[in-house]
Amino acid sequence: MTSIPLPSLRRLPRYLNVLENFQSQGRDTVSATDIADELDLKPIQIRKDMAFTGIVGKPKVGYNIFDLISAIRKFIGWSKETNAVLVGAGSLGTALLGYEGFSRRNLKIVAAFDSNTEKQGRTVYQTRVYSMDMLESIVREHNVKMAIITVPPPSAQTVTDALVRAGILGIWNFSPAEIQAPPEVVVKREDLSEGLAVLFVHMQEKQLQTGEA
Amino acid sequence: MTSIPLPSLRRLPRYLNVLENFQSQGRDTVSATDIADELDLKPIQIRKDMAFTGIVGKPKVGYNIFDLISAIRKFIGWSKETNAVLVGAGSLGTALLGYEGFSRRNLKIVAAFDSNTEKQGRTVYQTRVYSMDMLESIVREHNVKMAIITVPPPSAQTVTDALVRAGILGIWNFSPAEIQAPPEVVVKREDLSEGLAVLFVHMQEKQLQTGEA
Repeated sequence: MTSIPLPSLRRLPRYLNVLENFQSQGRDTVSATDIADELDLKPIQIRKDMAFTGIVGKPKVGYNIFDLISAIRKFIGWSKETNAVLVGAGSLGTALLGYEGFSRRNLKIVAAFDSNTEKQGRTVYQTRVYSMDMLESIVREHNVKMAIITVPPPSAQTVTDALVRAGILGIWNFSPAEIQAPPEVVVKREDLSEGLAVLFVHMQEKQLQTGEA
Repeated sequence: MTSIPLPSLRRLPRYLNVLENFQSQGRDTVSATDIADELDLKPIQIRKDMAFTGIVGKPKVGYNIFDLISAIRKFIGWSKETNAVLVGAGSLGTALLGYEGFSRRNLKIVAAFDSNTEKQGRTVYQTRVYSMDMLESIVREHNVKMAIITVPPPSAQTVTDALVRAGILGIWNFSPAEIQAPPEVVVKREDLSEGLAVLFVHMQEKQLQTGEA
């Protein structure tokens, strides 16, 4: 089994955005160069990345946009609906419950959970908030395999353990805590401070370059 | 000028979290192996990454935690306070205004902006929301060089242009739109669908592996 390299995988959703944009403009075909120009990348990179989805462009014609969109969505697993649960209905959890980008990618958050009794029973952007007691039964009832964690760091591991017991196989961890899960569970960390560090260091480098020029 | 590789740079904030954790437990020194175990990485990787900050551990002693924390914070630019503005006080903007991780990294959001008159004049997590007319004067008054964009995609480019006119040099773009800025401005895209794609594909790969085993 050959895995797609991480940088290529990260670019696929950006291609999808660009392709959907072209499609909404009424276009049927697109060249690797068109996509490259839009994203400030090189056409050869686009061709290599697209090949992972099984789609190869035709010389002088390019890619059929509809086919390419379908292939990327299918490759990532976004062509069918996926149920997820979210634990931690604080400010970040609330923002994610209201994030429109998820439904575009067929991600459906079927239930949210919070240990705060004042939040339980409420509906946040059409998703109901339940007590943690209900986690396992709801996860099993909806055959949920994916969970989003937006709890404070001290609760992250306890929540992870509960999710694993309930049969969750993929955890998207927005808490800055490092969590431990069994090998069969995929954990994807999402830490805003990483992006912030990248921006800060690149700003410093740019200022040094400008100063030197 | 040698630049730090992106994967190393992305790991620095994770090291900082781990080191601050060790520090809060009353520890003074730490080995590369201790950090590696915490993050499921190899000690040699830790040593290489740390060297970019100018700190080299001592054999059999390891790193002085205080020195290492200071060096990483200084390297990233988190040792002094940085002012920022945020444009788009919707659900994601609100979550970021309430995000506690920013003040830990000396990032201060001095003002928020929104085109919705109902939001203007409000205070969200201690940050006041202004009309877009006020952008340039507030940015210049507080000598702000960094901006966070959390507006819907159709407004992203107009907002970018206004920020550039006001003298902003670094943009953290949470809108899924691709934005164009002059070469002196650093743009860091933050797209949740990238992380979602990585989680989905890794879950599929894991399931194939488990199925094959």
